[in-house]
Amino acid sequence: MRFLMTFAYDGTNFHGYQKQLKARTIQSTIEAELTKLNSGEKVIINASGRTDAHVHALGQRAHFDLVKNIDPERLKRSINKLLPDDIYVLNIEEVSQKFHARFDVKSKEYIYKINIGPYNLFDRNYCYQYNAPLDIVEIERALQYLEGTHNFKAFTKVDEAKENYERTILKTSLIRDNEDPNQLTLSFLGTGFLRYMVRNMVGTLIEIGEGKRKAEDIILILESMDRKKAGKTAPPEGLYLKNVFYE
Amino acid sequence: MRFLMTFAYDGTNFHGYQKQLKARTIQSTIEAELTKLNSGEKVIINASGRTDAHVHALGQRAHFDLVKNIDPERLKRSINKLLPDDIYVLNIEEVSQKFHARFDVKSKEYIYKINIGPYNLFDRNYCYQYNAPLDIVEIERALQYLEGTHNFKAFTKVDEAKENYERTILKTSLIRDNEDPNQLTLSFLGTGFLRYMVRNMVGTLIEIGEGKRKAEDIILILESMDRKKAGKTAPPEGLYLKNVFYE
Repeated sequence: MRFLMTFAYDGTNFHGYQKQLKARTIQSTIEAELTKLNSGEKVIINASGRTDAHVHALGQRAHFDLVKNIDPERLKRSINKLLPDDIYVLNIEEVSQKFHARFDVKSKEYIYKINIGPYNLFDRNYCYQYNAPLDIVEIERALQYLEGTHNFKAFTKVDEAKENYERTILKTSLIRDNEDPNQLTLSFLGTGFLRYMVRNMVGTLIEIGEGKRKAEDIILILESMDRKKAGKTAPPEGLYLKNVFYE
Repeated sequence: MRFLMTFAYDGTNFHGYQKQLKARTIQSTIEAELTKLNSGEKVIINASGRTDAHVHALGQRAHFDLVKNIDPERLKRSINKLLPDDIYVLNIEEVSQKFHARFDVKSKEYIYKINIGPYNLFDRNYCYQYNAPLDIVEIERALQYLEGTHNFKAFTKVDEAKENYERTILKTSLIRDNEDPNQLTLSFLGTGFLRYMVRNMVGTLIEIGEGKRKAEDIILILESMDRKKAGKTAPPEGLYLKNVFYE
């Protein structure tokens, strides 16, 4: 039986999503607990993609197979009882044996939270504490240049050798919180994202918001395909994988 | 020179406010850093009162003496650079040598956060994850019976021997968050609070909200002066010392 699981995690105390020897990761934590519910047969989970250390998820998705059929609602309750309090399963549904949580992704949404107001220590692991003003209008202008199909090589990890650096960003937005306009949320909906791509785009957007670069510099950075032309990598704690869409 | 400091802390990773041998506490962390700014002369800080393990503060206050005069703004910047990211000094001002941060307290405000909606893992250290409905109207009725001057012995720690258990609660309120009405904040403004008093009142209010007790039971519990008559102690992560008032 193949299942598709939607789950959230607080990345603060994990060394990222992907299994590693001797490090607490999201994948290994979930697999250990699912294995207990599978008559001891080792369960492997296949996520839509990995997330880096300290990065969060509101709606990560993964598929896995169990040897016997368990009611998805019951399975959800059982796994949530076993999991630590920084991972929470939101939904489990049965899917076809042909479904693949990574290969079948149509689009993904990432959000990045920035606090441009005073330091908020309760949010320090959940929002980048930038704590200084930024030019919002210029950042919004720059976001427009990121939308569309581009070669994003300049925005990925230097040593990340890929056959294809072309990705499509379908939609971007910058939202200021109603109650506290110093809380910014950048959103990126795209067909796929390269490693560090969102954090490198955000780091560059921050430099644009600081007035160090212009919105139009995005065009030149994309064309250069040179990581050195883009800005710093924004810290991981502001980043959330929000949604993964299929079909 | 005597200074009054207003500070916030995230209580999650502290063994409470008060100094202890071999445990990370808020007092010992601040004193260690202030001592560095006092030409190495040991600094003792006197807070408005202690808070228990995992309890937070939005506006705790403490006084301390330094051997030489330092500009309060500069002192604030220096100490914030030295402190870990889960303590943050909001303000420092010079006060008279007669001022005492505990003895001169006129009133204090505590708030307690409860989530009656679905589990929110990002808020698990900052809000009690009750995650089930409560009768808000009945809790609001019960709050009225707590206001005024009463003997609060039934709501304090069993082994807490005190000369005087009489305290005055000046004002209470229950606020539902505008954006998410499942986020409840109980507020208690009072002249003073006994150990565990807020958490024991909240634990009792929750049992009233569950329908296990009536609002009027508060009168009987107060009269009994018997800890066993009150409800369970609510968990620490929902509790915040919000304000301390002087003069």
